[in-house]
Amino acid sequence: MNNFDYKNPTKIIFGKGEISKIASEIPENSKVLMLYGGGSIKKNGIYEQVISALKDFDCVEFGGIPANPEYSVLMDALAVIKEQKIDFLLAVGGGSVIDGTKFLSSAALFEGDNPWDILDKKIATQKGMPFGTVLTLPATGSEMNSGAVITRKETKQKLVMGGPGLFPVFSILDPSVVASIPERQIANGLADSFTHVLEQYMTYPIEANLQDRFAESIMQTIIEVAPRILKDPSDYKAAANFMWSCTMALNGLIQKGVPTDWAIHMMGHELTALFGIDHARTLAILTGPHYNYNFENKKAKLAQYAERVWNVDGSLEEKAKAGIQKTTEFFNSIGIQTKLSEYTSDFEGTGKEVARRLAERGMNGLGEYGKLAPEDAQKIVESAY
Amino acid sequence: MNNFDYKNPTKIIFGKGEISKIASEIPENSKVLMLYGGGSIKKNGIYEQVISALKDFDCVEFGGIPANPEYSVLMDALAVIKEQKIDFLLAVGGGSVIDGTKFLSSAALFEGDNPWDILDKKIATQKGMPFGTVLTLPATGSEMNSGAVITRKETKQKLVMGGPGLFPVFSILDPSVVASIPERQIANGLADSFTHVLEQYMTYPIEANLQDRFAESIMQTIIEVAPRILKDPSDYKAAANFMWSCTMALNGLIQKGVPTDWAIHMMGHELTALFGIDHARTLAILTGPHYNYNFENKKAKLAQYAERVWNVDGSLEEKAKAGIQKTTEFFNSIGIQTKLSEYTSDFEGTGKEVARRLAERGMNGLGEYGKLAPEDAQKIVESAY
Repeated sequence: MNNFDYKNPTKIIFGKGEISKIASEIPENSKVLMLYGGGSIKKNGIYEQVISALKDFDCVEFGGIPANPEYSVLMDALAVIKEQKIDFLLAVGGGSVIDGTKFLSSAALFEGDNPWDILDKKIATQKGMPFGTVLTLPATGSEMNSGAVITRKETKQKLVMGGPGLFPVFSILDPSVVASIPERQIANGLADSFTHVLEQYMTYPIEANLQDRFAESIMQTIIEVAPRILKDPSDYKAAANFMWSCTMALNGLIQKGVPTDWAIHMMGHELTALFGIDHARTLAILTGPHYNYNFENKKAKLAQYAERVWNVDGSLEEKAKAGIQKTTEFFNSIGIQTKLSEYTSDFEGTGKEVARRLAERGMNGLGEYGKLAPEDAQKIVESAY
Repeated sequence: MNNFDYKNPTKIIFGKGEISKIASEIPENSKVLMLYGGGSIKKNGIYEQVISALKDFDCVEFGGIPANPEYSVLMDALAVIKEQKIDFLLAVGGGSVIDGTKFLSSAALFEGDNPWDILDKKIATQKGMPFGTVLTLPATGSEMNSGAVITRKETKQKLVMGGPGLFPVFSILDPSVVASIPERQIANGLADSFTHVLEQYMTYPIEANLQDRFAESIMQTIIEVAPRILKDPSDYKAAANFMWSCTMALNGLIQKGVPTDWAIHMMGHELTALFGIDHARTLAILTGPHYNYNFENKKAKLAQYAERVWNVDGSLEEKAKAGIQKTTEFFNSIGIQTKLSEYTSDFEGTGKEVARRLAERGMNGLGEYGKLAPEDAQKIVESAY
């Protein structure tokens, strides 16, 4: 096990009917900016619950934060924060709204001239404007971590940011929200959280037994509840397990002391930037090809995964191969296609373009060994057509 | 899954050589009281490492905090805190030193006349004097939670305390310390952490799938590394898994959203108070009898545990019984005896005395159903002779 530091100060408030607790978690006399997305919260009752909980606060709203939170939209929100002298942010939404709010938390206190530098120059945020979240879409884990991914259409860029100042002060996780999530989004959440675990697990053995078993626990739980939630999203017990698994998949715990990969995400971000494919689906497209390409390096963990998570028997090689196969089958079983050509007919040359874009940003060594070059990424993407 | 709140702000600094980081975690210009136990840290090099890390601080020492931290000793330390105007506490030790430090953290800012009230009147600590810990003995999880157990010889009492103000600011976990721990203490740590998990798991099913699997993960890891550490406590990799498992066993995570028992601890505390038996060993004595006595209520979880943790097959009843048997065998395998008569010849009447003492303090309903009466405790203890 490698040395590590771990601190996660976010307060989680989990369960049915907990949204009303917002009021006691936001400092009195705060001027609140409530941020949300495309307006689904106005259809499923969450908007009313939040507004009612905020009735004693001076509150301004900003809706319309898109999936893959867009820099230009966030800059409009930043102008509102400055004009209205906002001092507390409340994200009501999924990963995109929360990630956008993290950018705003950082940008609101940023002392440089150009907030884009936070992303482009990879400036870690030590202190941001305090913010809370009401999670409406389990998937990204953003509700209990300090990272965010921001998109800029103008330059077709999708960049990561973060820092110890970007943990939510609190996050309210009410699994009843799952009942009103469209099937496509639920499937995305299942695939996204599952891949988050894989990125922190499918590397090489380092005798971090507990972290391995925790990662396997999350994947087993997601596999168990996936068919139940897809069949009936109002199955509260299944939804609660789904929601807590998504949070635990990316709140920092399982990555402590172990090598991590994240190459699937780095390549996947390019597919979203190029084609607008849902984030989770880009991960499902690339997981199998990435593991096949790096089979020798990853086969020990692939075999352990196949055995413990999928109850597969056989030689190390057989188990490792079955692990990849089972993963692809799992994505397909939740209705997620795993070939790029199933999403776009314009796929020719994508491998090369992804490689070019990674090289352009100096991402010349991805993966747990830091050795996956743009030409490797090209071959991986090409085998995903 | 039940609704829950979860927040754990302790910063964990984990790994070889990390003790030197103390200096950057304590606020500048703090006046520090360093607390420790019987002096083993002066033999294994930890004392020197801590003193060297603290060289730029004004630091006072207080040694001699005994196992089962004793109220009267702590009152001497409290006098030092007041006289010397201490404003930061540093616990260097195991659960007893850390628990004692938590009492001092609370008592130092307590506004009442009699600090004993914190324990006797169960006053939750909202704000304590800030403190850090350097863990020298993995077992209790006290390094990442906000609870403590304090003993008062005078009245043969062992009482619990806690509150959101009692999380350590930081805890340094260097697994190399395990190399110098006597075998008896290592065995205690293994049994203690294992039983902590059981107390939060062996109740009734509530479809908290992830919490169940996390609990099983910790137990599986402890079972895996136990023989390696007992054979060679300088096996760093095994020690690291042991240490992290002990912390995760009682940092609050696995108890969220599930029923918990804790009857074994409540009865066990009485055996320590009456006979001075090591805390962990009282748990090992009572676990089997408690599960046999409450077999009907616990058999579903006992069977799940036997199947997943011990790979036992059979009917529900068979698996459940095997789960109890395997647990007893595990304690024995690490050198821990599981009969009260193996610890004292003076055991006659103990069941009745434990029942009397529980009743005296109004503990009339223990366990996950709150229905285990003193007369039940009597029978459980009697079947542990």
